[in-house]
Amino acid sequence: MSFSKCLTLKNMNPCLKKIEYAVRGPLVIRAAEIEKELKEGKKKPFNRVIRANLGDCHAVGQVPITFFRQIIALIAYPGLLSDPNFPKDAKERAKSILNGCRGSSVGSYPDSSGFEIVRRHCAEYIENRDGIPADWQNIIIGNGAKDVIKAVMELLISEINGKKAGVMTPIPQYPLYSAAISKFNMHMIGYYLDEATNWSLNVSELERAVNEAKEYCEPRAIVVINPGNPTGQVLTRKNIEEIIKFAHKENLFILADEVYQHNIYDANSKFFSFKKVLMEMGPPYNQMELASFMSCSKGYMGECGLRGGYCEITNLDPEVQKILIKSISAMFCPNNIGQAVLDCVVNPLKKGDPSYELFEKEKNFILDSLKERAKMVYEGFNACEGMSCNVVQGAMYAFPQIKMPPRAVEKAKSLNQCPSVFYCFQLLEQTGVCVVPGAGFGQVEGTYHFRTTILPQPEELKHMLNIFKTFHEKFLAEYK
Amino acid sequence: MSFSKCLTLKNMNPCLKKIEYAVRGPLVIRAAEIEKELKEGKKKPFNRVIRANLGDCHAVGQVPITFFRQIIALIAYPGLLSDPNFPKDAKERAKSILNGCRGSSVGSYPDSSGFEIVRRHCAEYIENRDGIPADWQNIIIGNGAKDVIKAVMELLISEINGKKAGVMTPIPQYPLYSAAISKFNMHMIGYYLDEATNWSLNVSELERAVNEAKEYCEPRAIVVINPGNPTGQVLTRKNIEEIIKFAHKENLFILADEVYQHNIYDANSKFFSFKKVLMEMGPPYNQMELASFMSCSKGYMGECGLRGGYCEITNLDPEVQKILIKSISAMFCPNNIGQAVLDCVVNPLKKGDPSYELFEKEKNFILDSLKERAKMVYEGFNACEGMSCNVVQGAMYAFPQIKMPPRAVEKAKSLNQCPSVFYCFQLLEQTGVCVVPGAGFGQVEGTYHFRTTILPQPEELKHMLNIFKTFHEKFLAEYK
Repeated sequence: MSFSKCLTLKNMNPCLKKIEYAVRGPLVIRAAEIEKELKEGKKKPFNRVIRANLGDCHAVGQVPITFFRQIIALIAYPGLLSDPNFPKDAKERAKSILNGCRGSSVGSYPDSSGFEIVRRHCAEYIENRDGIPADWQNIIIGNGAKDVIKAVMELLISEINGKKAGVMTPIPQYPLYSAAISKFNMHMIGYYLDEATNWSLNVSELERAVNEAKEYCEPRAIVVINPGNPTGQVLTRKNIEEIIKFAHKENLFILADEVYQHNIYDANSKFFSFKKVLMEMGPPYNQMELASFMSCSKGYMGECGLRGGYCEITNLDPEVQKILIKSISAMFCPNNIGQAVLDCVVNPLKKGDPSYELFEKEKNFILDSLKERAKMVYEGFNACEGMSCNVVQGAMYAFPQIKMPPRAVEKAKSLNQCPSVFYCFQLLEQTGVCVVPGAGFGQVEGTYHFRTTILPQPEELKHMLNIFKTFHEKFLAEYK
Repeated sequence: MSFSKCLTLKNMNPCLKKIEYAVRGPLVIRAAEIEKELKEGKKKPFNRVIRANLGDCHAVGQVPITFFRQIIALIAYPGLLSDPNFPKDAKERAKSILNGCRGSSVGSYPDSSGFEIVRRHCAEYIENRDGIPADWQNIIIGNGAKDVIKAVMELLISEINGKKAGVMTPIPQYPLYSAAISKFNMHMIGYYLDEATNWSLNVSELERAVNEAKEYCEPRAIVVINPGNPTGQVLTRKNIEEIIKFAHKENLFILADEVYQHNIYDANSKFFSFKKVLMEMGPPYNQMELASFMSCSKGYMGECGLRGGYCEITNLDPEVQKILIKSISAMFCPNNIGQAVLDCVVNPLKKGDPSYELFEKEKNFILDSLKERAKMVYEGFNACEGMSCNVVQGAMYAFPQIKMPPRAVEKAKSLNQCPSVFYCFQLLEQTGVCVVPGAGFGQVEGTYHFRTTILPQPEELKHMLNIFKTFHEKFLAEYK
């Protein structure tokens, strides 16, 4: 008996077909296959895959913060509250979280926007960071920042004068944004970051991008990732002011991805939140609409797998905010464990607390080590002939440029691959090092990059950079 | 200086405006206000709010399963693996979960569809349940069932011959479906459950609904909730077969919400999964496309706040499945704690395991008590004059009908309220009992219902039913 599917490529949601997501794309799938082959005893010129493709700290040896994990154990299994091996401050914090849970169990539903107590702590954290008031009712917690990024972007889906909503997005960009734009049937307005000035945002480039786009879409929002992913830059206050002025002129909603706000390594760089700058610029800028995103997955904690993140919305139309809250309550629910971790991040231990010394030691060890690794990566790639890499001022990534030999470009094109993809596949197959091709993030036509994390532990990273140098020299020799 | 918002009610996403979600709607918001007022010492004719509005077991006194919580403590804080107070089987399970995590930390990213080991256990669970093979690669894990329900529904968004996709949805229904349909700009094709035959699905009603809908939409899928929410019925195998035949005739994708599969109370009822029935019906039915949803939030565990759920997809076009997986990897990430709980549910302890006896005792205590409460609710509401309630065969809810006095209907209409909303607000304000009006789920025009959970602990439930009876008599007297 014949049978035709009711759901096929032809009649499925066309927007989903357009989604691309390189950080978990074909190269990463191949890396997993190679790991399996190695496990099965297959001979390779290397004995393990080095994963520098994903900002996944714990996967590559980062140790969790003790206090955070004690909290999870205590709230999940409150019998431990009488265990003398757990410190007093951890028990107190655990009790206050359980107090915020209905029925004193983390198994009960939180409010859809998250626990009031955690939202209040987020607001206090922001106030302390910026010196600007923050209202806890403007905080929405999700299962990681992804949930809340999508929820805010969805507000902007609309058709105006027959034109789709356009969202300005950096190139190179973190592909969550392009994926969401595809899925939401919006238009991506790519603006190029300026590699020559350490990936800063150039207003004339923003102007070019928005003006060209106006013909075929209605520009509604601008995404800025600061510190940068995949580019590792930290925006100056002056640059942020320029972006805000531009957004004001074009009446754009600002989406500030600030999940790496704890990850600043460069002595000359400082993190300024968009909220702080916008508020301090005074009228009319301090009335602009802004959403800022933060996560437990990055920073010094790196708790990606526990899924905690928040959004602060500023100056949203109160009627629109009501609809946002309503739509969230129907569609989302943040997990309670991720919220507890978020609470630890935004309401950190204070001097004098029994666990403070250990916490500070662990936190600083990680941040100091990341700083060291940021430098290693910068120096390592710049030491390779035909490669250049900007200073990694912040975040967890570098985006080095490869001066690709013309014969390698030809070879890649003959395989119907972007040369950056070709390069990264060769690297993976020959050395086991897994990085993500620049094509997955976007790059100026005719330039070739890759994104690497700075996350492998220092010894491993040194090893990786050596492998890279040897591979790169061999590659240049082969295609010169 | 004047300032106009860039995002307003006029130019925001129109689909979000249409979303309604009664289970967290105005009545529930009012209940929270009343709780605050009571805390502040405001005098009311009652001293606490009794929440019977949400399937939130732990919020109303259900105790977590010890073994599950031990697992969370152990994986979050592996120092406890050497604590002699934790049983051996919990430690072994925790180690196997940590083994499945990159870097042996629950802080690392899982694969977007979830850990392979948990997906394999889900497939084994389904095989054991149905006696039908299940492929772990067809299992997708989310932050609760909501994530995966949305992901599957999104596949169906499309416009065919200028018509929106239509999704058949029961009335009354769990409003997640209507909310998702609004958000996705699809068309909801409501089909009425037959209250007279204990909320069964009547094929002639399905025919009516689909035929009327064909004029203005393209029917693509049918949602069936079994056991039923808000209606508490358990479908017979015969009824499921009829639904499958109907779906086949109309070429519909079946979305089977089976999250209450552990919650069967009626001695004459048995849970049959759509997968089992469809497969056992043989060709052509065993080639039909189906997605079945399951969750940790319900059953005997009730771990709503930890967010673990899965979907099994059956017979999906492999090309469509690839796109589903790709879109999930860009947009979703299940939390690892929810996955660990899911693992405990689908790979339960076995006789002889050190923790088995305690686990069985706790599980059976909860399920036996729910069975008793299902009966109490059924009997309690039927003992009220002018109220009728079907047997609660399964799930966690009853949906009693109120024979509303005409004067009460008039009064409600004068307030521009559905009489069911009017009734529930009166109940809340006068007694502190919080249930959800039938209007939030849908009901046959001119009939009035409410949804109550069966979840308050037995003594509290008895108290609630007494309050209800007194209130209801007073209400009838007032409006007779």
